[in-house]
Amino acid sequence: MGIVLGANQYGKAETRVVRVVRDGPRHELRDLNVSVALSGDLDATHLTGDNAAVLPTDTQKNTVYAFAKRYGIGEPEEFGLRLARHFVAAQPSIRWARVTIEQYGWQRLGPHSFQRDGGATRTCAVTVDGAGEAVVSGVTDLVLLNSTDSEFWGYAKDEYTTLPETKDRVLATAVSARWLLSSVDTDWAASYDGVRAALVAAFAQTYSLSLQQTLYAMGRRVLEERPEVAEVRLALPNKHHLLVDLAPFGLDNPNEVFVAADRPYGLIEGSVLREGAAANDGAF
Amino acid sequence: MGIVLGANQYGKAETRVVRVVRDGPRHELRDLNVSVALSGDLDATHLTGDNAAVLPTDTQKNTVYAFAKRYGIGEPEEFGLRLARHFVAAQPSIRWARVTIEQYGWQRLGPHSFQRDGGATRTCAVTVDGAGEAVVSGVTDLVLLNSTDSEFWGYAKDEYTTLPETKDRVLATAVSARWLLSSVDTDWAASYDGVRAALVAAFAQTYSLSLQQTLYAMGRRVLEERPEVAEVRLALPNKHHLLVDLAPFGLDNPNEVFVAADRPYGLIEGSVLREGAAANDGAF
Amino acid sequence: MGIVLGANQYGKAETRVVRVVRDGPRHELRDLNVSVALSGDLDATHLTGDNAAVLPTDTQKNTVYAFAKRYGIGEPEEFGLRLARHFVAAQPSIRWARVTIEQYGWQRLGPHSFQRDGGATRTCAVTVDGAGEAVVSGVTDLVLLNSTDSEFWGYAKDEYTTLPETKDRVLATAVSARWLLSSVDTDWAASYDGVRAALVAAFAQTYSLSLQQTLYAMGRRVLEERPEVAEVRLALPNKHHLLVDLAPFGLDNPNEVFVAADRPYGLIEGSVLREGAAANDGAF
Amino acid sequence: MGIVLGANQYGKAETRVVRVVRDGPRHELRDLNVSVALSGDLDATHLTGDNAAVLPTDTQKNTVYAFAKRYGIGEPEEFGLRLARHFVAAQPSIRWARVTIEQYGWQRLGPHSFQRDGGATRTCAVTVDGAGEAVVSGVTDLVLLNSTDSEFWGYAKDEYTTLPETKDRVLATAVSARWLLSSVDTDWAASYDGVRAALVAAFAQTYSLSLQQTLYAMGRRVLEERPEVAEVRLALPNKHHLLVDLAPFGLDNPNEVFVAADRPYGLIEGSVLREGAAANDGAF
Repeated sequence: MGIVLGANQYGKAETRVVRVVRDGPRHELRDLNVSVALSGDLDATHLTGDNAAVLPTDTQKNTVYAFAKRYGIGEPEEFGLRLARHFVAAQPSIRWARVTIEQYGWQRLGPHSFQRDGGATRTCAVTVDGAGEAVVSGVTDLVLLNSTDSEFWGYAKDEYTTLPETKDRVLATAVSARWLLSSVDTDWAASYDGVRAALVAAFAQTYSLSLQQTLYAMGRRVLEERPEVAEVRLALPNKHHLLVDLAPFGLDNPNEVFVAADRPYGLIEGSVLREGAAANDGAF
Repeated sequence: MGIVLGANQYGKAETRVVRVVRDGPRHELRDLNVSVALSGDLDATHLTGDNAAVLPTDTQKNTVYAFAKRYGIGEPEEFGLRLARHFVAAQPSIRWARVTIEQYGWQRLGPHSFQRDGGATRTCAVTVDGAGEAVVSGVTDLVLLNSTDSEFWGYAKDEYTTLPETKDRVLATAVSARWLLSSVDTDWAASYDGVRAALVAAFAQTYSLSLQQTLYAMGRRVLEERPEVAEVRLALPNKHHLLVDLAPFGLDNPNEVFVAADRPYGLIEGSVLREGAAANDGAF
Repeated sequence: MGIVLGANQYGKAETRVVRVVRDGPRHELRDLNVSVALSGDLDATHLTGDNAAVLPTDTQKNTVYAFAKRYGIGEPEEFGLRLARHFVAAQPSIRWARVTIEQYGWQRLGPHSFQRDGGATRTCAVTVDGAGEAVVSGVTDLVLLNSTDSEFWGYAKDEYTTLPETKDRVLATAVSARWLLSSVDTDWAASYDGVRAALVAAFAQTYSLSLQQTLYAMGRRVLEERPEVAEVRLALPNKHHLLVDLAPFGLDNPNEVFVAADRPYGLIEGSVLREGAAANDGAF
Repeated sequence: MGIVLGANQYGKAETRVVRVVRDGPRHELRDLNVSVALSGDLDATHLTGDNAAVLPTDTQKNTVYAFAKRYGIGEPEEFGLRLARHFVAAQPSIRWARVTIEQYGWQRLGPHSFQRDGGATRTCAVTVDGAGEAVVSGVTDLVLLNSTDSEFWGYAKDEYTTLPETKDRVLATAVSARWLLSSVDTDWAASYDGVRAALVAAFAQTYSLSLQQTLYAMGRRVLEERPEVAEVRLALPNKHHLLVDLAPFGLDNPNEVFVAADRPYGLIEGSVLREGAAANDGAF
């Protein structure tokens, strides 16, 4: 039985590009981390080292910088689409391109002064191949906490269960969300702002009996409010805030003092989508 | 058009367990980071907050510790199989369990003294569901470097290509490899040692025309030497070592002085498998 | 010549405490990382293992949690002072205590909902011993960028200098600042807000000929605006934004497209203080 | 009362240099992270932006690379001394130079193949000024564990103490050690190997009543075995391994199953030195 090459891809990861738009005294700033992956007729380089079909990853990096100047960046989804289309169109050996981008936010301090916004990071993943184009937008490291309105009880119990049921706990998570857009003709900035606002509002407003319930509420809210979104995938770590036992010190602790634990953590993952929507796992 | 819950899973991530075997004066040590994910009849908790089918992630953590005492740990694949089978068997609502493990190595200094081996981490992912059981073993952060016997030329060039061709360069990577075992009845320790040795030997002994060629040689060597392995998936970052231009200082630099660059980096990913092998993406 | 024990200290580092104030429907949140270090009559534990003078680090951790409940946290400087005074007063063997705190910010989303502010972290270091009490407040990871109004030229040149002079560059840094308060009776919140605002304003408003000049301007501004501050110490990494050479692609690059480099980076460190102020290195 | 500039320094941090020695078919490899800091007549750049006394940090970086070619690297202490002497000698405005280096280890796999040794990192700090030259060598991230022969009892107790005394516990730490050499004419490689071996041996062989006792034993062993060492400074985090309570599951736990905790951790710091040795805080 022979040995064969299976699925493969290659590219340049984490090209850091900062673009200043300085058309007037008031500058604009875009700060991205861009990763490119390509796939196609790549058997030769694997099997014999013949690189004729390999566009160097260094060239991919150069393309990121050149496009940032030539066309500007605009919204990260636009920049990703422009890059992915280019790679598929420009190289006959390349039939699939994926561009993933992290965009770091900056707050304006003055006409050409900025402060990095250290919170959530905006993301996108753009996929272009012969079958079409797909865009998944996202957000990571969006850390949210409700200090009440969260319960957890009525769960399955076995011989290894010691967790006490609770009618009041802290619920905290670092939202990692990705959502598939129905079309590549989208108002990206408005869509991102709207989805993010929906996620935050649903987290804050849901009286939670489980983090799963909150997850579904967040996904559902996005789909209700944003018609351009086809599916939302969420990964919500349960950032446990453990109630400290202060009884040894003669103190009660009515949900006031907590340990913010690092590890282990619960991890709740799920998808919420429109009924009958076509599956598109390859876009995520 | 309605909104529905899609694929979902939950579990406890990164339970850190250290197990000392102290049957005699010479202790043994196992140091693991264990993550559990479960799936099954979980609609109710998402839709209504009814948790009757939810085995708490805290219970999953307790199970890891109790099993470490009751059965010992042994090889990580054994421990993972025992845990995954338990969760699927013990809870009627659970139909799929995945246990992923990182094992940190320690070198012996004395009968009960050890030094952490900071290099590569051994990994495994065990999946158990109604369709069967699958084990993928792996290694991450195995950093390898060849200071010669690597070329890169003859690649595709376009208007954004500036990279000079080279007949001699440093080739360095941090190997991340995962391989699917054909059977869950495997001598796990021997298999891990054998695969790791094959990966290292193939990297060191391959005269490389591209990192893709090295990747394929590594996967092929594993399959040639280890009949128990069905497929190898490799992710190889190209940890660029950039030649420094010393000409401004009146010095030549015949591949002697390099910048070890952080970002960006090439990322080469591929699978090598036995011809005709059944696909098992779900195991990875 | 004998061998002796020199300076020594011990304590519990990185106790993570979250305190919810829930006196009414609108909750307040404090999120701290507290480290304690103690020194005193500790020869015995080092030389013979006699621990009679050692207050366990576990007790120090317990004290953090108990005090968070008993007294609340308030401003981090107040909490640090209360803890440091306690350790020195409560244990005759302890003659010096230092409490260092990181406070993570949260923005309010609702009466009991919050979003973590991922940007700069507020810090303080409180030192209490027989000689008195000292408080150093601080901020870290405050990332600032000016996209123009920065030059760098006229510097010393030797045979290893290749850097071109520039009249226009991006200047970016991650401010790490610590400042000594003249008194432990300070309005901590107002002082922190005022110092931070002065640092940011000075960075944004200084036309810079060197990062050192900006550093001095920042320290000077703090001392001018905040009479309660005796000395400011700044560590400013020069987060290089390297202009990309786009000429190979037929493009100019008038300070528009930059690589945000990780390493190496310049590191500018300095102190600005009131003339004639007493030195207090031990407080920092 | 005026405002003045206090102590200040500047330099290039974290220049990553890899040097291949390829005099024959068997290559040698050095992998360093080099940071330079300089001080001297730097008032002008701070106060007016006049940079005439400022040797650019970019030049410092270039010097690292040029020296790596021109003189080779040798032991990190030699390389640090050569660089620090150069900066003080070459620039009249520079009167103090410190070069700190991390050296990453690689194991040989073949004549020109290597595997990164991910464990402890070798360090050094070289200081040169008008008063002389000083070298501090060191090691970090040397993770050691004893699975028995460690007790902790007889400590001070107060109202916040809940820790049970123990006659048997796991003792684990990540050694961070720095030691001052009496002379800059030292066999650096032999000294480093000898000190590291002494640290490890003392940790493994000390029956410990406290981590402070172990710290002192480690420092003492170094000074006993290595006459070239004047002082050892150690920072030993107590990497807590917490015994898991398995009683709820009907299991005892005689020091067999532990949680490897992340935070908080004890932190024990101390110096061991030769009686009557001259203090040299500035070297550390």
